Amino acid sequence: MQRPEPEPRSFDRVLSSMCTEPHPDARAAAERFLATNPGDPATYDAVADLEARAVEGLATLADHPSPGDAAGYVTSGGTEANVQAVRSARNRHDGGRGASDGSGGGGRALNVVAPASAHFSFHKAAAVLGVELRTVPLDGDYRADTDAVAAAVDDATALVVGVAGSTEYGRVDPIGELAAIADEAGARFHVDAAWGGFVLPFTDHAWSFDDAPVDTLTIDPHKFGQAPVPAGGLLAREDAALDALAVDTPYLETRSQATLTGTRSGAGVAGAVAAMDALWPDGYREAAERAADNADWLAEGLADRGYDVVEPELPLVAADVPEPEFAALRDAGWKVSRTGAGELRVVCMPHVTRSALRAFLDDLDRIRR
Amino acid sequence: MQRPEPEPRSFDRVLSSMCTEPHPDARAAAERFLATNPGDPATYDAVADLEARAVEGLATLADHPSPGDAAGYVTSGGTEANVQAVRSARNRHDGGRGASDGSGGGGRALNVVAPASAHFSFHKAAAVLGVELRTVPLDGDYRADTDAVAAAVDDATALVVGVAGSTEYGRVDPIGELAAIADEAGARFHVDAAWGGFVLPFTDHAWSFDDAPVDTLTIDPHKFGQAPVPAGGLLAREDAALDALAVDTPYLETRSQATLTGTRSGAGVAGAVAAMDALWPDGYREAAERAADNADWLAEGLADRGYDVVEPELPLVAADVPEPEFAALRDAGWKVSRTGAGELRVVCMPHVTRSALRAFLDDLDRIRR
Repeated sequence: MQRPEPEPRSFDRVLSSMCTEPHPDARAAAERFLATNPGDPATYDAVADLEARAVEGLATLADHPSPGDAAGYVTSGGTEANVQAVRSARNRHDGGRGASDGSGGGGRALNVVAPASAHFSFHKAAAVLGVELRTVPLDGDYRADTDAVAAAVDDATALVVGVAGSTEYGRVDPIGELAAIADEAGARFHVDAAWGGFVLPFTDHAWSFDDAPVDTLTIDPHKFGQAPVPAGGLLAREDAALDALAVDTPYLETRSQATLTGTRSGAGVAGAVAAMDALWPDGYREAAERAADNADWLAEGLADRGYDVVEPELPLVAADVPEPEFAALRDAGWKVSRTGAGELRVVCMPHVTRSALRAFLDDLDRIRR
Repeated sequence: MQRPEPEPRSFDRVLSSMCTEPHPDARAAAERFLATNPGDPATYDAVADLEARAVEGLATLADHPSPGDAAGYVTSGGTEANVQAVRSARNRHDGGRGASDGSGGGGRALNVVAPASAHFSFHKAAAVLGVELRTVPLDGDYRADTDAVAAAVDDATALVVGVAGSTEYGRVDPIGELAAIADEAGARFHVDAAWGGFVLPFTDHAWSFDDAPVDTLTIDPHKFGQAPVPAGGLLAREDAALDALAVDTPYLETRSQATLTGTRSGAGVAGAVAAMDALWPDGYREAAERAADNADWLAEGLADRGYDVVEPELPLVAADVPEPEFAALRDAGWKVSRTGAGELRVVCMPHVTRSALRAFLDDLDRIRR
């Protein structure tokens, strides 16, 4: 039974997504590799080779000490990468691995300490993995409050999380201080740069393997990396972080599988490599600068109109736009979303042009009349 | 830095994969929806509508009592679907939900009882979710031994698993009897028809929601459904099974998310719908019959050559081919794999033609000379 063919989302009015229009090379590569499965490298060897290149590219961006043989893989997205980072830390914590009840071996649940700004995938990770998530308050500028983090860790803390480009306000936590707190507590340290990872190399923020003793890091090609969905990334400083995730695979011609999913997208892997080949570093630098300019321009435009604006740090603007205006913008076809506090939130992804933002403000002016 | 472009795997000599060449309509739809994310339905509404159609299609195949509003979603593959089924059962078991240590509330780990033939994703699920996996022996024909299953369940059993199309031998467990054992133990019952689900409707096997009190079921479009990777499927008889997986999503314009991953592949969803539109039911029936004929033909050819062959039940042939011949076949470019017991294993997917199998046996004859 044929029904009318729906249209995929055009990105013209999408201001709410952390995904974007893929680079043309990335789209072409993804189309070629649609029917491959990097989860079965013995059968799909070409895409397995590509995955090694993707990991090397991501590790280069994230200043891994040896990008050529960094531990990592292309995940379905930031959620899988974050869940796996929590799982690895749980398994590596003293007594954690093999304790089938997810406890530290002594019957006490392990915990993960993360700022309140951490992505909801950490809540999902805690629910899935049977660990306690301790979210701690932010400072006055939406960053992790290091005193609160220090007060929350204890010897059952398996992981401390720092966010480098938060989902709601685009903030970068004090990565060096958080790493030091984790180290003192005997916990692993994870940086969630899922969205920020392809922008941060062109800023002065501390976020990478080179900036602090980061154990694991999430960095997603299908966000600012301009790869097609699904292509997230998990990197680890040491092989042991991935080894702690390995489950035996009896019938595949490979020994074990460290991924959370089984079959994975060859399109995502091939698209990620093609995007990085085309854009690293100059194309990404230009995209990051353009996005930053757009965010500043939008923030100023909203402030000029009298809204309370959260000053952008990475290219994400939040502003206190009242609910009726927000609803009218959505009715006008703008895909916008809200922070937990109810602010309008605009993510200045590569597909978000200055003229689109101009049209957005024009619509807002029309609505306010 | 440009390197030579690798070629994606041609399916000509792939006899080891449970994925296949997508239907042309499915490939086209996937290409159109490459840059969409069904994990964010408020932004990507067209693909969210498509996902509802995909679930309805899968529910129709699996004889769900009300396909039009069946609970389910398009997963990254069978692994995610199986992990989620275990997670749902864990969360729904008395005291399971909210017990952050994954125990039944009394400090005792919950367990899952599955036949030894269950896919290794159940081992992964157990490791991730902190439940105990009890694998029980098979009967003389590679099916779950129901006496062994009955002996293994207890009141901490959250889930009993039946396999409808096992990975190694393509066997279908006695689904009705297993469901009765689960029911008596107060456990949920899951059917893993990841690979078999698009073939079983054209056989006499009991496997579906209509055949037994099945709670959850895995059925993957990207296997015999001829959809592109990644498109798996999880279905549930009751909404409550999915509700038990929901995690709040503060900044998406949707209330909660029941999936394991966050961002998901719109290409997989659109491809699954296009494949089912094109092939259900006649195209799938023809593919299933052709695959069954090919499996019988190959089994006979191998038996004629003196190999011990496991009689195919679904279109999968296992035969006791010695290691040197197996290695020579791989050297000749054939992608074949082995069962845990070391048998050669050929999966007669839609892309596996009679002429390919003829060439395969010719190569084997040449090797044996």
